[in-house]
Amino acid sequence: MHRAMHAKSASPRARQTNYPEPFAQRMAGRVKRPLGDLFGLTNFGVNLTTLAPGGSSALFHKHSRQDEFIYVLEGDLVLVTDNGEQHLQPGMCFGFPADGTGHHLVNRPGQEATCLEIGDRSEGDQVSYPIDDLQAQLGPDRKWIFTHKDGTPY
Amino acid sequence: MHRAMHAKSASPRARQTNYPEPFAQRMAGRVKRPLGDLFGLTNFGVNLTTLAPGGSSALFHKHSRQDEFIYVLEGDLVLVTDNGEQHLQPGMCFGFPADGTGHHLVNRPGQEATCLEIGDRSEGDQVSYPIDDLQAQLGPDRKWIFTHKDGTPY
Repeated sequence: MHRAMHAKSASPRARQTNYPEPFAQRMAGRVKRPLGDLFGLTNFGVNLTTLAPGGSSALFHKHSRQDEFIYVLEGDLVLVTDNGEQHLQPGMCFGFPADGTGHHLVNRPGQEATCLEIGDRSEGDQVSYPIDDLQAQLGPDRKWIFTHKDGTPY
Repeated sequence: MHRAMHAKSASPRARQTNYPEPFAQRMAGRVKRPLGDLFGLTNFGVNLTTLAPGGSSALFHKHSRQDEFIYVLEGDLVLVTDNGEQHLQPGMCFGFPADGTGHHLVNRPGQEATCLEIGDRSEGDQVSYPIDDLQAQLGPDRKWIFTHKDGTPY
């Protein structure tokens, strides 16, 4: 891609979520448009993420090595962390250092919400899910490997 | 920082630019608000950058190892690359893979413009400036070392 583009005109990710069931169905209200990949970026990813009412950005989770950052563009999102909940309006942002608080965004009110999500691709990253029986590890091919917390596959 | 915040309420960077003179004065119309640093992120930086009319996001440059991404929030910015110029309006984005095209953003019309800038902090990164007698290298302390193109210091 050698021309700038409107982020909203980017194609949604081919696969709606990589989570195994029963978690995948919880992501039904989420559409991610990968932006960084379109321009050939490899060190970090940028997604334009749209959440329908009731939609969730991800399962409640934390990364071991990846930093994450979110910036709200439209709507009213609830940020859930280990420290409680906070409503985010357009123009608000939050950063999640590696090995910090668990978190996700939930869209509760009656309107669609959109945010930018940025995360780097540090090697050896692992994701823990404090609420769900799930864990993930970044494989050498940069694909996520999901297992139960006891290591058995889904 | 344990609470989300309005990006515009973040403090401007303490030092307006790290460029040596005569380049520093060209950045007079630029205000960078470091957002990622506020939340303790280290793998990449996120800036809210505001350009006055006539302001420029940076000297025309390219990184050897750092990927960059920009998303326009307000105004009408001119993206200048090796491939020419393109006007960017709010909601438009562009990504610059490491060792790709030279680039910078210029604000030419009569209104202020704001964008988000993201860049990772890959070790050993070098910056080249095709138009100016300047080069930069990321030191082990993550500070930029600027020299003339023949290596002599400023």
